[in-house]
Amino acid sequence: MTPGIVTLTTDFGLEGPYVAAMKGILLGLAPGVTMVDVCHSIAPQNVLEGAFVLDGIVAAFPPGTIHLAVVDPGVGTRRRLLAIKAAGQWFVLPDNGLITGVAHAHGVEGAWEVSNRALARREIAPTFHGRDVLAPAAAHLLKGGDPDELGPTTTRFVTIRNFEATPADNGCIGEVIFKDAFGNLITNIKEAQLAARPADAWVVEIGGRRIEGVARTYGESSPGGLIALLGSSGWVEVAVVNGDAGRLLSAGPGTTVWLRPRS
Amino acid sequence: MTPGIVTLTTDFGLEGPYVAAMKGILLGLAPGVTMVDVCHSIAPQNVLEGAFVLDGIVAAFPPGTIHLAVVDPGVGTRRRLLAIKAAGQWFVLPDNGLITGVAHAHGVEGAWEVSNRALARREIAPTFHGRDVLAPAAAHLLKGGDPDELGPTTTRFVTIRNFEATPADNGCIGEVIFKDAFGNLITNIKEAQLAARPADAWVVEIGGRRIEGVARTYGESSPGGLIALLGSSGWVEVAVVNGDAGRLLSAGPGTTVWLRPRS
Amino acid sequence: MTPGIVTLTTDFGLEGPYVAAMKGILLGLAPGVTMVDVCHSIAPQNVLEGAFVLDGIVAAFPPGTIHLAVVDPGVGTRRRLLAIKAAGQWFVLPDNGLITGVAHAHGVEGAWEVSNRALARREIAPTFHGRDVLAPAAAHLLKGGDPDELGPTTTRFVTIRNFEATPADNGCIGEVIFKDAFGNLITNIKEAQLAARPADAWVVEIGGRRIEGVARTYGESSPGGLIALLGSSGWVEVAVVNGDAGRLLSAGPGTTVWLRPRS
Repeated sequence: MTPGIVTLTTDFGLEGPYVAAMKGILLGLAPGVTMVDVCHSIAPQNVLEGAFVLDGIVAAFPPGTIHLAVVDPGVGTRRRLLAIKAAGQWFVLPDNGLITGVAHAHGVEGAWEVSNRALARREIAPTFHGRDVLAPAAAHLLKGGDPDELGPTTTRFVTIRNFEATPADNGCIGEVIFKDAFGNLITNIKEAQLAARPADAWVVEIGGRRIEGVARTYGESSPGGLIALLGSSGWVEVAVVNGDAGRLLSAGPGTTVWLRPRS
Repeated sequence: MTPGIVTLTTDFGLEGPYVAAMKGILLGLAPGVTMVDVCHSIAPQNVLEGAFVLDGIVAAFPPGTIHLAVVDPGVGTRRRLLAIKAAGQWFVLPDNGLITGVAHAHGVEGAWEVSNRALARREIAPTFHGRDVLAPAAAHLLKGGDPDELGPTTTRFVTIRNFEATPADNGCIGEVIFKDAFGNLITNIKEAQLAARPADAWVVEIGGRRIEGVARTYGESSPGGLIALLGSSGWVEVAVVNGDAGRLLSAGPGTTVWLRPRS
Repeated sequence: MTPGIVTLTTDFGLEGPYVAAMKGILLGLAPGVTMVDVCHSIAPQNVLEGAFVLDGIVAAFPPGTIHLAVVDPGVGTRRRLLAIKAAGQWFVLPDNGLITGVAHAHGVEGAWEVSNRALARREIAPTFHGRDVLAPAAAHLLKGGDPDELGPTTTRFVTIRNFEATPADNGCIGEVIFKDAFGNLITNIKEAQLAARPADAWVVEIGGRRIEGVARTYGESSPGGLIALLGSSGWVEVAVVNGDAGRLLSAGPGTTVWLRPRS
C-alpha cells in the first residue's frame, strides 16, 4: 500500500541541497511516499505568492494529500508551526498567512500546532525547521498518525489581508500576485467579484492601460492584443495573446489593478 | 502493480501551480503512477524546441511510457488534441508539430483524436487543456484504457518543416534548435546527413566561424577550442571545450548553420 | 518491494532532454525506483559546488540510498568512473573530487571502478557517460547487484584541497562555496573550526566587512543586519536578515573569507 502523497512548496530555489534534504527525511520516515514538487521558486519570503500557489493546486489533488509549504521569513523567531486540515487535505506550514487562499476558498476543518519535540529530528537546526520539524510532522500524518500527537489544537491562524482585491467604486482595487512564465499577470481579483454584471461590462485598468471586458480565452483576441481574462484557477489575468504582458506593461507582483464598471 | 510511467514536457515554467495541478489530476485518476519531469522550461510556445526534447528522450524510456507534452500556442482555438502511438510509447499532445522528431525517427503506429468530453474534467478551463483534457487522457491510457474511447482514429497530424536541416550544395543548411546549460549549440543537422563523407571531410559554418571536421568527443580538442561534434542524441553540436559556444558566437536557437564539404 | 532510492545531482540544467534521459534508463533497468532530483543547476563543471551539495544531503537520506552525481568536465578523457560506499550509502560519480565532502565527513567504506562494459548501454555516447554508463551502474546497485561486477576495487580517489578552509593565524582562511536562493553565502569554514573558542569570540571578515560573533539563528539580529551564523548543514554562512548578502557584498562562490579571533 502506498503511504500517500506529499507536495512541496518552498522559496528554497532549486539550487543547493535544501529541498532534497527534506525529501530524504520524508523517504526515511515514510518509505514509498509519492512526492510532488509544486514550486521551489517562490520569491524569497513572499508569503502572498506561496498562498496563491497553494490555492491553485488544492482542487487538483486527491483527498488525504499532504501539502508541505515552507516560506518562512520568521524561522528562528516565535512564530508557530501548524498542521491545518482543509478541503479533505492537510497543510503543514508556518503560521504566517500561507493558508489564506485555501482557508478562504474551502474553510478550515481543524488546526493543530506542531510543537511536539519528540516527533522532530533529534537536532533541530534553528534555520531549517522545514527539514527538522515540518517534514517529520508531514511524515507522521502520511503514516496515518494522530494529529493530536503533533501538538494542541488551535482555532487561530494568520491570514493575509491583501490576498483578495478590496471592493471599491462598484468594482474593486487589487494587485498582481503572480507573473507566470508567459508574462501573464495574475491578479487577486476573483471570479466572484465579476458576478455583479456581464463580463463585457467591466473595464480592467493596469499600468496606465484600459482593457474593455473580461474574456474567457486567448482565442477571442488577435496575437499581440492586450486582454483581461478569467484564468484557469478562477483569477482575473492580464495577458498579451502570444506575447508577454509583464514586459509590455513593465508590471509584476505588486502592480495595482482596478476593476471598474464600463461607463 | 505499478500503473506505469508518465513524463511531462511543458513551457509552463517551474514557477506557479500549473505543473503540479496536472500532477494532482494524474495522481487522482491513476494512483501510484510514476511521474518524470522532462523539462518545463521550453521557451514559451516554442514547438520546435518541444519536438527536439521529445526526440531526445524516447530512446531512453521503456515501452508503454506515456509522454504528456503541453506546448500549446493554440489553446482555446480549434487545434486538435491527439494521442499518438510511436516507438511502443504514447504521446499525448496538441496537434501542432510536437510529434515531428519522434514521427521522423520512429514512424507512427497509430493516432487518435482526444475529443471525448466524458473522459475530461467536468469543467474545462479554456486556457488549461493540459490539466483538464490531456492529463485525464494520459491517465486513461496509464490505466490500460482503450484508445478508441479517447476519440476517433486519425491519419493526419502536423509536422514541422524545419525540424531537420535542408539539403543544399552537397551539404545542408540548418539552424540551432537548442542551447544547453553549458552553452553548447545543438543544430538540426542529423547524424545521417554526415554519411556522404568522412567526419573530417566536413566544414561547419556558424556565426562567421568555420570549423573543420566533426569530432566525436570533447577530448579531441583543447580547452577553449571551438569544435563541431556529434552529440549524444545524434545531432551535430557546436561547442567550446570547457567553455560557452553560445556566448562566444552570440548564437542561440534560430542561428543559421551550414554543413559543407571541405574543399 | 520497492527497489530503492536514487538521487540525481548534475550540472545539466533543467532545460533539454538530458536529465530525463538518465531517468528513463533508470526506470527501464530498475522499475519502481524512487528518483529524487537533488539539483541540476550546479554551475557548469563546478566540482566544488557538487561536492558541497552531496555533503549537504547525505545525513538526510536512509541507508542504501544511491546518489548518482554527474559533474564531469573530463567526460571523454581518461578520468575514471567510480562507485563509492560511504555512510551506508552509495555514490556513483566521476573520479574528480565530487566525493570530497562525503569522504571527509564519513570516511569511505569501499570504492570500485565502474569499467565493466557489459553493464553499460550497448552504445556509449562519448559525451554522455551519465546516461550510458553511470545510470546503468546505479541501476545495478539498486537491484542489489554485486559491486564487484562493476569493476575492480580501488583505494585511490581524487579529493579537492580547498573543500575546507585552511588554518591560519589562530583561525582560518576560506572561501564562499555556495550562494543560495536568499543570497546567503555559505563558506567552507566548518563547525569544528569554531571549537577553539566561544562563538562570540570570533570575527568573520568578508568583502571588506567585519562581522563580530557567529550566531545560531537569524532571530538574534534585526532585519537588514549582516550576520555570520552556523548554518543548517554545519557550515559558517554570511547572511543579511530578510535580505541578500551576496548582493550587499557583491560576493559569491570564490570570495575570500577570514575567521579570526576577536581581539
